[in-house]
Amino acid sequence: MASPESACAMADMNPDTQSIPFLESLARLVRYHSLIMTSTAKSGHLTSSLSAADLMIGLVFGGTFRFDVDDPAHPNNDRLIFSKGHASPLFYALWKAAGCISEEELLTYRRFESRLEGHPTPRFPFAEAATGSLGQGLGIGLGMALSASRLDRLPYRTYVLLGDSEMAEGSQWESIQIAAHYGLANLVGIIDVNRLGQRGATMLGHDVEAYARRVGAFGWKTLVIDGHDMPQILDAFREAAAERSGPVMIIARTVKGKGISFLEDADGWHGKALDEEQTRRALAEFGDVDREMRGRISAPENLRPERARTQAASAPHYELGKSVATREAYGAALKRIDAKFPQLVSLDGEVSNSTKADEFGKKDPGRFFEMFIAEQNMIEVALGLALRGKLPFVSTFAAFFTRAFDQIRMSQYSRANLKFVGSHAGVSIGEDGPSQMGLEDIAMFRSILTSTVLDPCDAVSTDKLVETAAAHDGIVYLRTMREGTPVIYGNDETFPIGGSKVLRESDDDRLTIVAAGATVHEALKAHEELRRDGISVRVIDAYSIKPIDADTLREAAAATGAIVTVEDHYPAGGLGEAVLSALADRPVPVTILAVNKTPMSGTGEELRDYTGISAGRIVETVMRLADQLVPPTRSLRSH
Amino acid sequence: MASPESACAMADMNPDTQSIPFLESLARLVRYHSLIMTSTAKSGHLTSSLSAADLMIGLVFGGTFRFDVDDPAHPNNDRLIFSKGHASPLFYALWKAAGCISEEELLTYRRFESRLEGHPTPRFPFAEAATGSLGQGLGIGLGMALSASRLDRLPYRTYVLLGDSEMAEGSQWESIQIAAHYGLANLVGIIDVNRLGQRGATMLGHDVEAYARRVGAFGWKTLVIDGHDMPQILDAFREAAAERSGPVMIIARTVKGKGISFLEDADGWHGKALDEEQTRRALAEFGDVDREMRGRISAPENLRPERARTQAASAPHYELGKSVATREAYGAALKRIDAKFPQLVSLDGEVSNSTKADEFGKKDPGRFFEMFIAEQNMIEVALGLALRGKLPFVSTFAAFFTRAFDQIRMSQYSRANLKFVGSHAGVSIGEDGPSQMGLEDIAMFRSILTSTVLDPCDAVSTDKLVETAAAHDGIVYLRTMREGTPVIYGNDETFPIGGSKVLRESDDDRLTIVAAGATVHEALKAHEELRRDGISVRVIDAYSIKPIDADTLREAAAATGAIVTVEDHYPAGGLGEAVLSALADRPVPVTILAVNKTPMSGTGEELRDYTGISAGRIVETVMRLADQLVPPTRSLRSH
Repeated sequence: MASPESACAMADMNPDTQSIPFLESLARLVRYHSLIMTSTAKSGHLTSSLSAADLMIGLVFGGTFRFDVDDPAHPNNDRLIFSKGHASPLFYALWKAAGCISEEELLTYRRFESRLEGHPTPRFPFAEAATGSLGQGLGIGLGMALSASRLDRLPYRTYVLLGDSEMAEGSQWESIQIAAHYGLANLVGIIDVNRLGQRGATMLGHDVEAYARRVGAFGWKTLVIDGHDMPQILDAFREAAAERSGPVMIIARTVKGKGISFLEDADGWHGKALDEEQTRRALAEFGDVDREMRGRISAPENLRPERARTQAASAPHYELGKSVATREAYGAALKRIDAKFPQLVSLDGEVSNSTKADEFGKKDPGRFFEMFIAEQNMIEVALGLALRGKLPFVSTFAAFFTRAFDQIRMSQYSRANLKFVGSHAGVSIGEDGPSQMGLEDIAMFRSILTSTVLDPCDAVSTDKLVETAAAHDGIVYLRTMREGTPVIYGNDETFPIGGSKVLRESDDDRLTIVAAGATVHEALKAHEELRRDGISVRVIDAYSIKPIDADTLREAAAATGAIVTVEDHYPAGGLGEAVLSALADRPVPVTILAVNKTPMSGTGEELRDYTGISAGRIVETVMRLADQLVPPTRSLRSH
Repeated sequence: MASPESACAMADMNPDTQSIPFLESLARLVRYHSLIMTSTAKSGHLTSSLSAADLMIGLVFGGTFRFDVDDPAHPNNDRLIFSKGHASPLFYALWKAAGCISEEELLTYRRFESRLEGHPTPRFPFAEAATGSLGQGLGIGLGMALSASRLDRLPYRTYVLLGDSEMAEGSQWESIQIAAHYGLANLVGIIDVNRLGQRGATMLGHDVEAYARRVGAFGWKTLVIDGHDMPQILDAFREAAAERSGPVMIIARTVKGKGISFLEDADGWHGKALDEEQTRRALAEFGDVDREMRGRISAPENLRPERARTQAASAPHYELGKSVATREAYGAALKRIDAKFPQLVSLDGEVSNSTKADEFGKKDPGRFFEMFIAEQNMIEVALGLALRGKLPFVSTFAAFFTRAFDQIRMSQYSRANLKFVGSHAGVSIGEDGPSQMGLEDIAMFRSILTSTVLDPCDAVSTDKLVETAAAHDGIVYLRTMREGTPVIYGNDETFPIGGSKVLRESDDDRLTIVAAGATVHEALKAHEELRRDGISVRVIDAYSIKPIDADTLREAAAATGAIVTVEDHYPAGGLGEAVLSALADRPVPVTILAVNKTPMSGTGEELRDYTGISAGRIVETVMRLADQLVPPTRSLRSH
């Protein structure tokens, strides 16, 4: 695929483009561009870009890095991720130095609608992923390295530029452990040890040996270098690229602000652009800069992954009325659809015998990745895999996805195709108690602007929605339950995203109960009890919480005049508020039943009753409301 | 304070109660109890408890641990935290062995309403904190150790029992880095290296030396022992307690299921209770167990922290109309109230020059704790401090609190008194782009059942609400902004939690605009523009998003008939849905304006307009609605 950038022409093939003097000049060029960009924008992280310039020039243009500049999507390109995403000026300057973007475009840095955002996102075609929340790049790179070595079997390497401050983030050490465990020899980290964080020195300052001891203790090969000595830099990258047994960390002693004397190693300049006078002084130090010079990047081997054949999936076969845990249905669904979605991979956080992802793992061990008790890295890895065209299904307890909310949040800015499956939803899990209960997961995933949120109540709908999620492009969250629930749907039923199922209705419905997951069954029990008391209610299974079936809700609101929502989830941001939002312009009274007390241990039944979401509580609520409600009138508002 | 437990009598003072044979018998007793508890409850983590029994008996009853069993709240008690909270059977059995709870109560394990929950919470008076989400205990312990050495200047030690699986959690390595950085010699970790995780072996198995290399590389003293050899255990704890220069990690090689032969080192038993027949076999292995035996715990020195004097705080003094960033007001407020709240401490994640917590840090350096770029540990530390009676104000960018949502979630189960202050709210931060923007923080904090959520729009309300938050017991979240906003309140104004301010109202209001933070100022601009067009609207500053001022909202709804909400936040779970929830039983049409597109770089003004929350967008919305709305009628519903 040819790049749309006509400017992305091949640089001069003169072998001098890899000489030390040439590379040092190129480094001066990207420093110059970083200065001009940030001074023009009057914001941006200049000193953080200056410290890494020599490292990145050495990597990208020194002969090791292999990338088809006319085809940023080439499957065998080496990958470069700026985990220290705030060094975006340097990042964009690199690609300008490659001839891929113009100098004019550099001046649009941080401007509204520019591709060159303050922190890189894939709106810029050479950014592998959106970064900017520190400590996530190494895990994303790990995902890409896994994709290369274990799935696509391509020889490309993934390079991740890391800041020293962000090495405090625990997520990095999750990635470090797991990259070593997986023996990923195609992953190279580069720590830009420039000593200074945002406000003062980092914990280790310039103690590069301390970083080497720490990273080395986890089984990585470590190479300690002077990050401004181009021959050392080139040697290190050559050595890293020759590594066959495991991941490599280049630990580079650098100077923050390197290249502008009054900024070098000086505290207080983080995230600051220079004013006019300071810019003039800095430019004077640069002297003449050849702004036309271009670096050469070696092309990758033209290898592509094998195209896997897809096969149609069988149909599920569940027996109506049988009690099946939806988490079991999840594992079974993965197995059922594995040939239809050959890019599907499963990642789990050491709870696969609980989430039932282990079922898929037993069938397709090459496509299952144990990610251990390290949820942040797990989501970062999933993102890396998704960006390489895989279809990751990530599972753990619903509650434990909160451990990786920042990673989930960031993944939306990479426009990732990711599926999250959270088991052990709600108080219904029983005796393990609240630390294990997902009670805010619906709210969390709804808050992601582009997400889809699904909460199926039985095995059939779970199975179908797993397949639907796989076919849907974007972030999807699906909730599963620990205990068995009765199969209530036929195997031929379909469950479109944005749909719902009206399970009970009559012409005399006094109100509508909207439920999802465990509470659908509570609602059905309540319906039965109310019917015996002569009260008819509509019951809707809102398995698609986002997008929610606003049309059906409106219809029910108009027909029955009032709604009671019930969810195994805390009150804020969940099903109830989703229903309120859907009806906001044409509202009817809504009563939200949700977990209204801090739970404890107990059986699922005891806890549902204690926290206000059981069949008994629904009946009480409906009885109380039935006294108050009058039939709806139509002439409320002009339309 | 005497313990309510009359059973918590002093054990026999016979020196034999610290002999090896006695301790080994006590270990057999707690193993016995762990078995009976889980078999009776038919659930619970037996094998995880069995592996740590000798370690914990050796610690608690071997003479090192100092605890007043009649006064679990004694300020100089040593602290014991089970980071591997699922080993709760062992935890409760220890306190039964100390004579503090009865054998009968042990049989209530995991039952509804029992104090002995599946994972410990402070409903059990000897549990320091709620644990159960792995990887958080070491940070909580770090917080307690900081409290002891840096604030209360008491000599107690904090011991944290860690599982080996949970060492994969990055949060542990944040704690390990920071404990070493702070040179905390009063913190002791114990890793129960039993080789087996939930589903198979851990990454390192029984390679205790690998753990020692890793932890040692971060500067901790490491002691590798056989976790079932009581003399080694006692020696290790003696050595750890004598340590003066930094934290100590005891790395114990153990056997999962130790003490019941058919469980020892066998995979597949994690989280499983034994059935009747298996229980009988296991009991036969135990033989005779003296269920009356009690261990002795040494009492602590009767030292208490100095009681700090409180002083009244001055009043704030802001000039009406002046542009002040609410984040600046935050820093100033901390300084203003520091003497009124002598237990107040500030923690920040290396962005204190951005959050302005550094203002407090400069004034009270002994009460400011740099927590580096490691948000998970920061929240864990804050919890530890709060549980020791301190008043932590934790600050970072609003967006980065998502990094610690699991820690925030868990803190509610410890009933902690914690204040979270998130700066850089919304698209209004401008050019840095979405990775730095808090757009889901209101939803996240609202989802915590017991939280308070505040979003002040100017310096005065921010200042007052910081003081109010300090005086309020519970989890409070307060949002601040990067850019200056005009001071609109007088210095005498009060801002009760659950209140709001009606900023503009008339008898002809066509609808009500409800806003918070940046959008209050957009709403005021819109009000002005609409007024010129002859349209009156009410404007409410809903600075208290949770609890929200339902009364004022109802009044406005009844008087004006429709509401438009505006927030610098994504649509789900925020201000708009909070308003909907407040009016759910007596609704009027509500239009939610929120950030409706993925943001990018740009100025705050450009981005507010682009994403639908600017004054211009509010005006457009009101104009569109004004055509549609009819005056409200009162006879909608019977009350």
